[in-house]
Amino acid sequence: MAHNIVQARVDALRRLARRRAAGPLERAVAKSSPEDVAQAIKHLTLADTRFMMQHVSAEEAGPILLSIDEERFQFLLGALPKEQLIYSVEELEPDDAADLIARFPEDLQSLVLQGMDKEEREDVEELLAYPEDSAGGIMSSVAFLLNENTTCRQAIEALQEQGDIEMVFYLYLVNESDQLTGVTSLRQLLINPPNKVLRELANPDVITVGPQTDQEEVARIVAHYDLLAVPVCDDTRKFLGIVTIDDVLDVVREEAAEDMMKMAGMGDAFDPTGTSTLLAAKQRLTWLIVTALGGLILARVIMGFEESLAQQAVIAGFIPVIMGLGGGVGIQGATITVRNMATGHLNLSDGLKALLFRELRVGISMGIVLSVLLLVGAWFLGGQIVGLAVGISILVIVVASAIIGTCIPILLGKVGVDPAVATGPFVTITIDGIAIILYFSIATLLLNTLPA
Amino acid sequence: MAHNIVQARVDALRRLARRRAAGPLERAVAKSSPEDVAQAIKHLTLADTRFMMQHVSAEEAGPILLSIDEERFQFLLGALPKEQLIYSVEELEPDDAADLIARFPEDLQSLVLQGMDKEEREDVEELLAYPEDSAGGIMSSVAFLLNENTTCRQAIEALQEQGDIEMVFYLYLVNESDQLTGVTSLRQLLINPPNKVLRELANPDVITVGPQTDQEEVARIVAHYDLLAVPVCDDTRKFLGIVTIDDVLDVVREEAAEDMMKMAGMGDAFDPTGTSTLLAAKQRLTWLIVTALGGLILARVIMGFEESLAQQAVIAGFIPVIMGLGGGVGIQGATITVRNMATGHLNLSDGLKALLFRELRVGISMGIVLSVLLLVGAWFLGGQIVGLAVGISILVIVVASAIIGTCIPILLGKVGVDPAVATGPFVTITIDGIAIILYFSIATLLLNTLPA
Repeated sequence: MAHNIVQARVDALRRLARRRAAGPLERAVAKSSPEDVAQAIKHLTLADTRFMMQHVSAEEAGPILLSIDEERFQFLLGALPKEQLIYSVEELEPDDAADLIARFPEDLQSLVLQGMDKEEREDVEELLAYPEDSAGGIMSSVAFLLNENTTCRQAIEALQEQGDIEMVFYLYLVNESDQLTGVTSLRQLLINPPNKVLRELANPDVITVGPQTDQEEVARIVAHYDLLAVPVCDDTRKFLGIVTIDDVLDVVREEAAEDMMKMAGMGDAFDPTGTSTLLAAKQRLTWLIVTALGGLILARVIMGFEESLAQQAVIAGFIPVIMGLGGGVGIQGATITVRNMATGHLNLSDGLKALLFRELRVGISMGIVLSVLLLVGAWFLGGQIVGLAVGISILVIVVASAIIGTCIPILLGKVGVDPAVATGPFVTITIDGIAIILYFSIATLLLNTLPA
Repeated sequence: MAHNIVQARVDALRRLARRRAAGPLERAVAKSSPEDVAQAIKHLTLADTRFMMQHVSAEEAGPILLSIDEERFQFLLGALPKEQLIYSVEELEPDDAADLIARFPEDLQSLVLQGMDKEEREDVEELLAYPEDSAGGIMSSVAFLLNENTTCRQAIEALQEQGDIEMVFYLYLVNESDQLTGVTSLRQLLINPPNKVLRELANPDVITVGPQTDQEEVARIVAHYDLLAVPVCDDTRKFLGIVTIDDVLDVVREEAAEDMMKMAGMGDAFDPTGTSTLLAAKQRLTWLIVTALGGLILARVIMGFEESLAQQAVIAGFIPVIMGLGGGVGIQGATITVRNMATGHLNLSDGLKALLFRELRVGISMGIVLSVLLLVGAWFLGGQIVGLAVGISILVIVVASAIIGTCIPILLGKVGVDPAVATGPFVTITIDGIAIILYFSIATLLLNTLPA
């Protein structure tokens, strides 16, 4: 219901930008949310995008710029007047402003920062110093902060004065050194007597994160404790800012999209529709070229078994099933491990040992079933030797793949590579190679020992 | 920082349950959140799980039962006294209560419902009637609802009386027929004069969803408009309940986990650590057996080309690279399509056409690069005929895989199957088969026409 309205609005914006209908476009933009405009831009040419942005208010330009893809962003940096870019930052909250400025070229960064008033500049500069995917990088420095000795009446007055905070999630209390001492809610202000001191009605047991905490970890904590926001504090418990649940939702959605892209062997910063053909091809080619080179090496290895192939050409027919099952089991193991790492299970005292033994047990169970199935099938199709070679290989390969698939993400994590990469082509290529070599070695051994 | 505390708590709970230390366990449980207890249970045996649940208060039992895996849940249904199960429901909010009751066997369901007071029973029964993954299924029927003619002072008084609403996100205004007419916030109550009527300060342009709206769609709307909650209304705009952002966050996290599992060819209801070895093996075997049977058919097909293989055994060496690239490109195309479907892009007027043409262009660009690379590599390794066969096949297969990968999720969606299944083994098996047949046909054609 709501979605159809969104779609109709987005479609209308696109049509007006394409038709270059300046007046109607300006009116339509004024009635739309920045999110709708950003959505419409995704399907416009660069020239139409520029036309659209020329008819957007300074207030809306910031949120739109924040959510468009890299290629259009770079184009607009050159195509829009510097003043519009600077204005667009000024209307944003410090956390969003920092995100936008971080994408500007250096000369524009200093220009924008110089144009800000001192307090806001300091806020933004502090935010720029934290890694993009840490709590510090996604936190907002604007939060409703009160001294713990404030009364309810004073708090309500403060709330009436501070008009610029769009959404008050919690009221955080600090002492004289800006250290977080408790948390309370707007509702408490309303249901307590006006002269009650906030310290007395606050909950002192606040869950916090550090500015360096990874954003996925922040998401986990917010979800685990059903929080609307989590405060970011330094080691001395000094209050630095808050990460709100709407930012967490964005993080989780982005990370999920990135993980899917990684599983499919595409770059983690991949935008499925926003980029040009050549750029998209380039991003997708990386793993495919690795696969191609790995495949060439494997071809050379298989050619080393030419003699066996000459004796029993049928052996070649089972290469696909050997690869398919090895890769399939390996990806299952890797995915389970990545999920376990993401949910923090492997940090538990004996998490890793339990997982490995479990994969071993599951691998052996699956290996036996698949081995019997394929031994019978291959024997029927290609005779005794091929049947035995396929059956034995499958048992070994399924068990090995389950273990290798489990270990690769852990090893990648240890050397600082994102384990999610392991759920993609990396694990498939590794296991394909091992599986094929195992299969041909076993087949050759059987050919040399058993009577044909 | 916070996470280490969580871990220490969870580890302590597990140790105490294993040691059967009733007293210390009870004290530790009282100090922990239900989330921590649920986390600890994930790594306990069934017997230890029962012991743990026997030392949990009625208040905490509900949230814990809600988040444990199916196997442990079914065990506890038999192992815990019926009274404890009934109590555990009573302490929950109606939306959670409905979720928990839905998992009970029928006789227990009616027992529990009979024990509730009339109003709560009606709430829960209404919720039970909606599909589990719809807005109606995840909504909470408890929200802060006021008549639009209420004044700020009256609203504050109402808030002080209604103590059972733990978190007030927005104040929703309704007319005499319970139809939603506007929304406002707690903050507006505080900054406006006490005798102001809410209708005058409310925003009448409320974004809503219907009770049948899919939960992913609800998540998209909440994220798109940065909402903390979205009201659920029927066709006459009658207010039914709200879906809050913390429930949306859970939905997004669950769906992301499910999508990853589907990409790896595992069931969508798969719990990576909670299930027994045999159950896990069974869930994972489904696609592997399909892969095995597909592989046997493919083996038979390849054996049909035995004559070509006998002439040039080297041909077999390139089966892995043909399969790897075909499958890789196909999965990329399928993943991009699934992402586009999930974000709603394909609903736009010419979304599908644009995507298909784009995949065609990207496929041709990648096909040319990979084809040249492998033509040279294969020629060098296996001579002219193999080089040409591999080079030509790769060009055809890469373009075909890009298009097939894009189409499969759309076709699956049309026949009502979850498109995410296409990003897993389904697309790989289909494309592997097509790729191998194409490759052998082209190689045979070249062998019969070109001089060796």
